[in-house]
Amino acid sequence: MSLDYQDDSLALHTDAYQLSMMQTYFMKGIHNRKAVYELFFRKLPFANGYAVFAGLERVVDYVKDLSFSASDIAYLRETEQFDEQFLDYLATWRFKGTIRAPKEGEIVFNNEPILQVEGTILDAQLIETAILNIVNYQTLIATKAARMRYVVGDQTLLEFGTRRAQEMDAAIWGTRAAYIGGFDATSNVRAGKVFNIPISGTHAHALVQIYRNDYDAFKAYAETHRDVVFLVDTYDTLRSGVPAAIRVAKEMGDRINFIGVRIDSGDLAYISKGVRKMLDSAGFPDAKIVASNDLDETTITSLKMQDAKIDTWGIGTKLITAYDQPALGGVYKVVSVENERGEMVDTIKISSSAEKISNPGKKQVWRITRRKDGKSEGDYVAMWDEDPRRAIGGLLMFHPVNTYVSKTVTDYDARPLLRDIIVDGEVVYTLPKLDEIKKYAAERIDALWLEYRRNLNPQEYPVDLSSKAWNHKMNLIRNVRNYVDEVAHEMAGEDTEYHG
Amino acid sequence: MSLDYQDDSLALHTDAYQLSMMQTYFMKGIHNRKAVYELFFRKLPFANGYAVFAGLERVVDYVKDLSFSASDIAYLRETEQFDEQFLDYLATWRFKGTIRAPKEGEIVFNNEPILQVEGTILDAQLIETAILNIVNYQTLIATKAARMRYVVGDQTLLEFGTRRAQEMDAAIWGTRAAYIGGFDATSNVRAGKVFNIPISGTHAHALVQIYRNDYDAFKAYAETHRDVVFLVDTYDTLRSGVPAAIRVAKEMGDRINFIGVRIDSGDLAYISKGVRKMLDSAGFPDAKIVASNDLDETTITSLKMQDAKIDTWGIGTKLITAYDQPALGGVYKVVSVENERGEMVDTIKISSSAEKISNPGKKQVWRITRRKDGKSEGDYVAMWDEDPRRAIGGLLMFHPVNTYVSKTVTDYDARPLLRDIIVDGEVVYTLPKLDEIKKYAAERIDALWLEYRRNLNPQEYPVDLSSKAWNHKMNLIRNVRNYVDEVAHEMAGEDTEYHG
Repeated sequence: MSLDYQDDSLALHTDAYQLSMMQTYFMKGIHNRKAVYELFFRKLPFANGYAVFAGLERVVDYVKDLSFSASDIAYLRETEQFDEQFLDYLATWRFKGTIRAPKEGEIVFNNEPILQVEGTILDAQLIETAILNIVNYQTLIATKAARMRYVVGDQTLLEFGTRRAQEMDAAIWGTRAAYIGGFDATSNVRAGKVFNIPISGTHAHALVQIYRNDYDAFKAYAETHRDVVFLVDTYDTLRSGVPAAIRVAKEMGDRINFIGVRIDSGDLAYISKGVRKMLDSAGFPDAKIVASNDLDETTITSLKMQDAKIDTWGIGTKLITAYDQPALGGVYKVVSVENERGEMVDTIKISSSAEKISNPGKKQVWRITRRKDGKSEGDYVAMWDEDPRRAIGGLLMFHPVNTYVSKTVTDYDARPLLRDIIVDGEVVYTLPKLDEIKKYAAERIDALWLEYRRNLNPQEYPVDLSSKAWNHKMNLIRNVRNYVDEVAHEMAGEDTEYHG
Repeated sequence: MSLDYQDDSLALHTDAYQLSMMQTYFMKGIHNRKAVYELFFRKLPFANGYAVFAGLERVVDYVKDLSFSASDIAYLRETEQFDEQFLDYLATWRFKGTIRAPKEGEIVFNNEPILQVEGTILDAQLIETAILNIVNYQTLIATKAARMRYVVGDQTLLEFGTRRAQEMDAAIWGTRAAYIGGFDATSNVRAGKVFNIPISGTHAHALVQIYRNDYDAFKAYAETHRDVVFLVDTYDTLRSGVPAAIRVAKEMGDRINFIGVRIDSGDLAYISKGVRKMLDSAGFPDAKIVASNDLDETTITSLKMQDAKIDTWGIGTKLITAYDQPALGGVYKVVSVENERGEMVDTIKISSSAEKISNPGKKQVWRITRRKDGKSEGDYVAMWDEDPRRAIGGLLMFHPVNTYVSKTVTDYDARPLLRDIIVDGEVVYTLPKLDEIKKYAAERIDALWLEYRRNLNPQEYPVDLSSKAWNHKMNLIRNVRNYVDEVAHEMAGEDTEYHG
């Protein structure tokens, strides 16, 4: 028996409609028209005050050698939905576009482009689905991790989620994102190997069950490892687990590095205090207490309020699945497209709710900070040809929906977030090491005012449109309204209208 | 630039503590002791009345050629946590154990083994994490899909979730699980290719934005495809989208197969009724209306209550992430282990809450059905050497916690669920075709009483322990209590006790 998955490329990791549209572009001869697409999300996840951008390395890895394998083309042919000439074209297709994004680990906000693709409409369309798949998940998890980092201060955070992750990629890319967002180590050994993340883990209940008592299990473990953490809750934490751990730690003395004990069940507040007293009175005041069991930032906050004696936090399900909000709603919209005369024309997607209308045109995000201390003033989303560093008389920033909320900023620095990653199909960006990304994220979060960083009810960070971008959007909305009215008027005689 | 992930095997897709324990077993010379581990979950997801077992094919694919690559061993060596002899052993290690499971697509319940691993403690330990990672997610999604199938009856369900899935594996394995649970097609082309799932998708808003009006976009699409569904909500569904779709459908006539239109925003109940009237009066009573936009079984039920005119449902985020409960809490526990004298000794994990105490010993799950009509009577979890087909005077079934709830069943059939999949490392099971699995799941769900199938507040399906299994469990609980009391007594003089 053998499974033959024929899964030899990621080119088909896309929605069927992308290929259908690409066929239209190709057969209509417009597939080489240029366009700009931007990725953004409308709401911050977890009602957090910011998000941590993650997934760029995976995006680069996905795009850089992307091509259709022979089995991909054969499959598409079998579906009988595609034109032969189009399939021939795909067989030699390579991505030749440009991708811009912030550095991984950058702090990003809702309603601003966090990734931009400029290229042919065909190229930009194909990669939409996979890029969203990657960036939505990894940004979500990095942000969730940052929330947990916020509540534990400088204590240790361990990622234990693989068994509950949504399949294998989520386990390893999720733990990488968690590391960027503030975790210290992972239990997933493959992630340790592939990404060079520190790994963590000692033993499970099974060890104690196999030895049939805590003492024999801990002793065997201690005799076969240098660093030891004993899991003390298999039978009874305070009555058998901790006493056995202490006995083994005393017997082994300097032959082991007795790091501490782990509790994985029961009333963690009550039990951790008991364990702390027992370890202290036995002469192990430096032994750490590791706790796990469905923890998240809310339960950790509660445990800390109760003065639970926990030093290290093992987090599984609630982190790796982003349990309370398991998806980031990032979308990818065409904002500008070349017309039949070779001019770039900006485009808009209309919705009945104001905040869901996309911002037309190719844009840059400028991070505005106070010159004197580098503290955040807000983000300024401007048309690509604008440069807010040259604003005369200060920079006017106003809320893009509630426009009366405004301020004029002087003595500021403006830093563009979208930078070239891939240009005309070539990777031009040197991907930073993971530890550098992690450090960068921590620094960027530190540079935010505390009001944006708190977990609960943070202040809304200003993400403002430039006047030019705002006026441009209003014009396009008017244009679309006129178009719709014309069509409706034209159709009026045709008996196809509906009035509810 | 090139990324060198060195990701050449899944052997390290495990928790670090598995390898740490394996090292203890190996260095203590007990790694070849036999054991039985069982996978089960304690609560049905979504408060559903049953779960749909999925993930077996991926488990087989994972286990069958599992081995440590040279780079795996090199990485483990670099961590300086592992013994050289142990690493030598791993370098040639292969899984030699036995795996039993139900057929994929089988209906399963909480508190019964849904996968069993029998082998050495070393073999069984290594694969725990990945098996949970696979089965937890795929079973979750298949079950979620079945809930959606329940509310749509025989209408069409399309899986559109890739962009919101938790990374790439979730997208493709999730859509496979959704197909098993009752979906008809997917937008993910790679899943279509790899698993032979029908693919579905026509065009996005981008097509309309690129052509700058509905009519030109639809016309171009219609001229380049045979089967067409027009997305009508880019600018204004009723005023411009549907009129344009109708015009193109009329102009193209027999040159296209006008399947219908898709709505992706707005008030789906109100708009779908308008669209239906417009299509009908234009002479397209057979044109379908496809709806999407954050749908799940609850919103679908609501739309149906409102008599929304929707024929086909496109479901993304809420399905592929199992949004309202994004993890199934499956666990994997050792239930029996060989002792130093070569005898199998059953083992238990104690918890302060009764329903969290594991069921000791190697077990089989028997599905009990009425002989006359095949309808479900309940599941009977028995010790491996029991055979309920031979019960004299009927089969006594009683609730494993509330033991006064009982019944005696006569004229029944008993069918064992756990069957050999891999025996001594060799795959002995012929994996069914995906369509057969899907059909099997539908039949199994049909065989349940309606009371177990409804989405809201289903009746609790009986999962009962045999008397022998129940008595055995009670004995082991007593043994553990005695052990804990002895240790506590022994330690009493040692000043390590804690009384809060």
